[in-house]
Amino acid sequence: MRMRIAVAGASGYVGGEVLRLALGHPEVEIGAVTAGESAGSPLGAHQPHLPALADRTIAETTPEQLAGHDVVFLALPHGRSAELAAQLSEDALVVDCGADHRLTDPAAWQRWYGGEHAGAWPYGLPELPGARDALRGSRRIAVPGCYPTAGTLAAFPAVAAGLVEPEISIVAFSGTSGAGKAAKPHLLGAEVMGSAGAYGVGGGHRHTPEIVQNLAAVSAASTVPVRVSFTPVLAPMPRGILAVASAPLAAHAVTEEQAREVYAKAYDAEPFVHLLPAGTQPQTKSVVGANAVQVQVAVDADAGRLVVTAAIDNLTKGTAGGAFQSVNLALGLDETVGLPTTGMHP
Amino acid sequence: MRMRIAVAGASGYVGGEVLRLALGHPEVEIGAVTAGESAGSPLGAHQPHLPALADRTIAETTPEQLAGHDVVFLALPHGRSAELAAQLSEDALVVDCGADHRLTDPAAWQRWYGGEHAGAWPYGLPELPGARDALRGSRRIAVPGCYPTAGTLAAFPAVAAGLVEPEISIVAFSGTSGAGKAAKPHLLGAEVMGSAGAYGVGGGHRHTPEIVQNLAAVSAASTVPVRVSFTPVLAPMPRGILAVASAPLAAHAVTEEQAREVYAKAYDAEPFVHLLPAGTQPQTKSVVGANAVQVQVAVDADAGRLVVTAAIDNLTKGTAGGAFQSVNLALGLDETVGLPTTGMHP
Amino acid sequence: MRMRIAVAGASGYVGGEVLRLALGHPEVEIGAVTAGESAGSPLGAHQPHLPALADRTIAETTPEQLAGHDVVFLALPHGRSAELAAQLSEDALVVDCGADHRLTDPAAWQRWYGGEHAGAWPYGLPELPGARDALRGSRRIAVPGCYPTAGTLAAFPAVAAGLVEPEISIVAFSGTSGAGKAAKPHLLGAEVMGSAGAYGVGGGHRHTPEIVQNLAAVSAASTVPVRVSFTPVLAPMPRGILAVASAPLAAHAVTEEQAREVYAKAYDAEPFVHLLPAGTQPQTKSVVGANAVQVQVAVDADAGRLVVTAAIDNLTKGTAGGAFQSVNLALGLDETVGLPTTGMHP
Amino acid sequence: MRMRIAVAGASGYVGGEVLRLALGHPEVEIGAVTAGESAGSPLGAHQPHLPALADRTIAETTPEQLAGHDVVFLALPHGRSAELAAQLSEDALVVDCGADHRLTDPAAWQRWYGGEHAGAWPYGLPELPGARDALRGSRRIAVPGCYPTAGTLAAFPAVAAGLVEPEISIVAFSGTSGAGKAAKPHLLGAEVMGSAGAYGVGGGHRHTPEIVQNLAAVSAASTVPVRVSFTPVLAPMPRGILAVASAPLAAHAVTEEQAREVYAKAYDAEPFVHLLPAGTQPQTKSVVGANAVQVQVAVDADAGRLVVTAAIDNLTKGTAGGAFQSVNLALGLDETVGLPTTGMHP
Repeated sequence: MRMRIAVAGASGYVGGEVLRLALGHPEVEIGAVTAGESAGSPLGAHQPHLPALADRTIAETTPEQLAGHDVVFLALPHGRSAELAAQLSEDALVVDCGADHRLTDPAAWQRWYGGEHAGAWPYGLPELPGARDALRGSRRIAVPGCYPTAGTLAAFPAVAAGLVEPEISIVAFSGTSGAGKAAKPHLLGAEVMGSAGAYGVGGGHRHTPEIVQNLAAVSAASTVPVRVSFTPVLAPMPRGILAVASAPLAAHAVTEEQAREVYAKAYDAEPFVHLLPAGTQPQTKSVVGANAVQVQVAVDADAGRLVVTAAIDNLTKGTAGGAFQSVNLALGLDETVGLPTTGMHP
Repeated sequence: MRMRIAVAGASGYVGGEVLRLALGHPEVEIGAVTAGESAGSPLGAHQPHLPALADRTIAETTPEQLAGHDVVFLALPHGRSAELAAQLSEDALVVDCGADHRLTDPAAWQRWYGGEHAGAWPYGLPELPGARDALRGSRRIAVPGCYPTAGTLAAFPAVAAGLVEPEISIVAFSGTSGAGKAAKPHLLGAEVMGSAGAYGVGGGHRHTPEIVQNLAAVSAASTVPVRVSFTPVLAPMPRGILAVASAPLAAHAVTEEQAREVYAKAYDAEPFVHLLPAGTQPQTKSVVGANAVQVQVAVDADAGRLVVTAAIDNLTKGTAGGAFQSVNLALGLDETVGLPTTGMHP
Repeated sequence: MRMRIAVAGASGYVGGEVLRLALGHPEVEIGAVTAGESAGSPLGAHQPHLPALADRTIAETTPEQLAGHDVVFLALPHGRSAELAAQLSEDALVVDCGADHRLTDPAAWQRWYGGEHAGAWPYGLPELPGARDALRGSRRIAVPGCYPTAGTLAAFPAVAAGLVEPEISIVAFSGTSGAGKAAKPHLLGAEVMGSAGAYGVGGGHRHTPEIVQNLAAVSAASTVPVRVSFTPVLAPMPRGILAVASAPLAAHAVTEEQAREVYAKAYDAEPFVHLLPAGTQPQTKSVVGANAVQVQVAVDADAGRLVVTAAIDNLTKGTAGGAFQSVNLALGLDETVGLPTTGMHP
Repeated sequence: MRMRIAVAGASGYVGGEVLRLALGHPEVEIGAVTAGESAGSPLGAHQPHLPALADRTIAETTPEQLAGHDVVFLALPHGRSAELAAQLSEDALVVDCGADHRLTDPAAWQRWYGGEHAGAWPYGLPELPGARDALRGSRRIAVPGCYPTAGTLAAFPAVAAGLVEPEISIVAFSGTSGAGKAAKPHLLGAEVMGSAGAYGVGGGHRHTPEIVQNLAAVSAASTVPVRVSFTPVLAPMPRGILAVASAPLAAHAVTEEQAREVYAKAYDAEPFVHLLPAGTQPQTKSVVGANAVQVQVAVDADAGRLVVTAAIDNLTKGTAGGAFQSVNLALGLDETVGLPTTGMHP
């Protein structure tokens, strides 16, 4: 088994992370690397950390360039993926790292993104109940958003077990690579270093409906709608998301031990999710570059809330690593093949 | 009017910030600078940013060294301030930058700090209803904690106006100077740069009861206890706190305009609190070094929550600046004298 | 004495720093704030750290808008200042924070910038021998580049005293605000955080001829040309320059004490330059926001070189602070009026 | 071929990096992990990024614990390695990541470190002429210091080819992990973030004689002593070294093309050294976590100097990666086995 992959959007951060992981994946052969404006230039000019690919020339992103590969990764702005995917072979495994095929509800798509809904694809968060079955053998994968990966993994076991009322509050701190490589003044180093600021406050971020969709799908409180307050914060670091998810305890008597058992049950068999020992907390640095999630659970008895913290690398488990995890599943490989779980510390 | 001040704990971060502000305060003359282990060394060895004081020798922190000053700032570990303050003149204005005199409830003190409760002093958060009256003419001031300053200013107008149910969730992202200058491995630059991690999760941080105390004192819902879930996050920046406070809306119909009016009413006359124009968000960098608070209000109609964001500098408005603001009040000066509202950007 | 100032380029980093300092200068009244693309928007949208000016509307940069002020600060791209200055009153004090009037040699201008040479103005580095005389009463000031400020102050006393051969090597680490606010991919936070890289290596940076000009003007070795190897490095910090200047000792027997005496003689009377105590080193953090320079001198007997280190804030002493220092001189004020020497630490 | 390794000093930064790389090395089995004060605690408490080893208990560093392994990595303070190594089997491959066996000259050892000289071991910088021969089959390896790795690789081709006079000036900017994990106030995050400062200025750093030794060994100018002025700068980043090495051109006529040819000849066949395309510069971020070196060469004709820049990760190519490279050689494996050349970007 050996897959030949193409990467559209190869000059950006997500494309670069797909290629970084591809170089370490024993079953991958790297085929076409394509982009828009960067087409024609050497990959090394855009991805200086990948010396093995430095001399590759970036091709233009067209259906023709992407044809003839086993797997095609699309790391493109929303709207663009759906259009392109429609022109790719049904036999190829197409992996959309963008938003086009994540939402199942056309009305939600219309509200949050606008334009025509391209339809949902199997959702690439294998840890979510039922997700693996949908991914196995699939030829289309919708890679989750980075915040939804962190937020969903922090909250879903509690929601599914009915530990909490489905009124979830998530505040998530993200490294600035999550905003991509397009140069905008507020993302300049001089602006972000030494500073923190929220954005999309009050439910304005497009990842909100995706988190709601994930949690609603597993909610134990089937008659009560799941509501999610999501606040993203831009943090002065290049990579990483730390999500703090909390919700009112469904019953006063829930103890930390009980909550821990729920999370242990959800994650003990998961190869990429690490419920930390009591007394320690997730740190984003520990999962930088790894397809790994660190999770910790706490009960605040005074406030009557469950508080769960989760750390991921937005580009690895949050995007490209999660994508390869799903690709492995789709192609019948061991889910863990080629995926690092070791972070970069310090 | 000219005050002669002494600073105990002059080699630490809070002491350094008191001195930095003192140098810009037109009514201040700097008297004794004292410390524990650093006694005998030049101040310049500990506060390299204060060339005007570089050659001052640090004296030992004793009641004798601190005697004979109009104002004595105590920047000491908790427990130590109360002990020392008891030996200082009742005529001197004693300003405790530590925790010893913040909590009014002896049982809360006992639970969170242990040992004998030294009693509460007038609380140095002038923006809080009633606080200015208590501070005017006082000879003792308890400077609030940095997180309680940010969290209280984010939440209290909504709680006081009954905009929200008193179930407040606060996640606050803090620069590492908040942890002080004592060298601990997890505070090393190599650990914190590029990383974010929560601590004291589940209600374990000692600033929680202080926030509860502040909000309970103003709560419109007098028969319902105020509950606060507080999660601090260590952020890769030297200074600054960004607090995200949210709570369920008390009534479904609350609009952002109504919420904004409540905050405008609370803050329009406040010299140091800036309710930002709609569409902009607080950034910690904008208030670095300033005795300033940036606040923004949002209503998340889907989630049924009010979400308020606030940015301060933990060492300035969060400690030393807030302290001088209260000192100005206590001594009958204009509250704004000598306090910068201009931040350091970029 | 009270000066009314105008600031052209008020939405950029240099313009913002001029305004930040202006707010703390007792003799300044802020008149017109102008810009190009940002004209028409409120200043608060660009300078969120200046609440006192948040509601000012930015006017367009035209000679008419800038007329009628005592002092006009030009914080504009090179080429643009000269053009505009030519249309301003000869009675106004015009301060060019750009490069247009720094170089005295038309051939050097032609080689490094191209186009017509606009002629040199009095050079705003008061610490340089002879500079104060030229600045007093002047109605035109050329503010030095940030690197030349750091590099010249590190090297000139040794060059002037003949301590070293005039073969100066300068490696300087700069915060990214030195590159301005225009959004470029390599200046994104995700790129610069956690990384260091040189640029303009091999003598390609336009600040090189300015340093040569400064050192040549004072060189004790009048028959030997001054040569400068200058390597700038982009550092993962928002502000600050640390310059490491070294050169071969002119005589083997030079001791650190002798070198120190030379620097003490040059700087002991300087209000903004601090020769640090032996055993300590300049740190950029200590001078952030301050019109201050920290300097240290070392002799490497094994290598036969003098090594001098200097730290400044590129925006303060390196640009806007140095500009006000020269303005004070030009207008007959005390040179130190309104200029902070206290840095922001930690 | 499969090697069982032991790591002494497993709780520190170097030990952690050895283990991180070991997990990715196909021929390595991890045996004993030992430490001093941390003995008895789980490895996960010290190396949170290595989930695969989280439950390993750290043993005490004793000859007995380290016995029975094919390779023993010593990541210990200087002085301690030599003492311990003397008690280890001569058949084991002992790899000293510390300084004890780097210097060949007992007098240099005495001057820079003091105490008895333990004798030099084969020096683990395979790129240095002659080094591979000494490493093949060896049972003892002295891993170079991180600065000497960067500085030597930047300078030696020019020195060996006689391109420059042997008067080398090196300024190197290092991430703070180079200072280790021991908590010291000046290494706190609040101190280092946003700041740069030199140390050991004037030839005081112990890595200086090591660089001199390396360059003297290859110098084309056999009758002229090699002199090195080395200035290390602490940079606000966790990992990475950027070295700027310069020296007077030996002849005026040397062109950049000629210099480039010399470096291409030295490095084209090297698997871990990448001479970058003209017009690009090494960035430390590009080599984070990689056993890779980025190098660029420039000729400054005006200054008459060659300027070479080099970037490494101090913990990877600078220590643990370089160590494995040498281990591969010593054991007869392909030199590149198990060593990542892909960096972590952004």
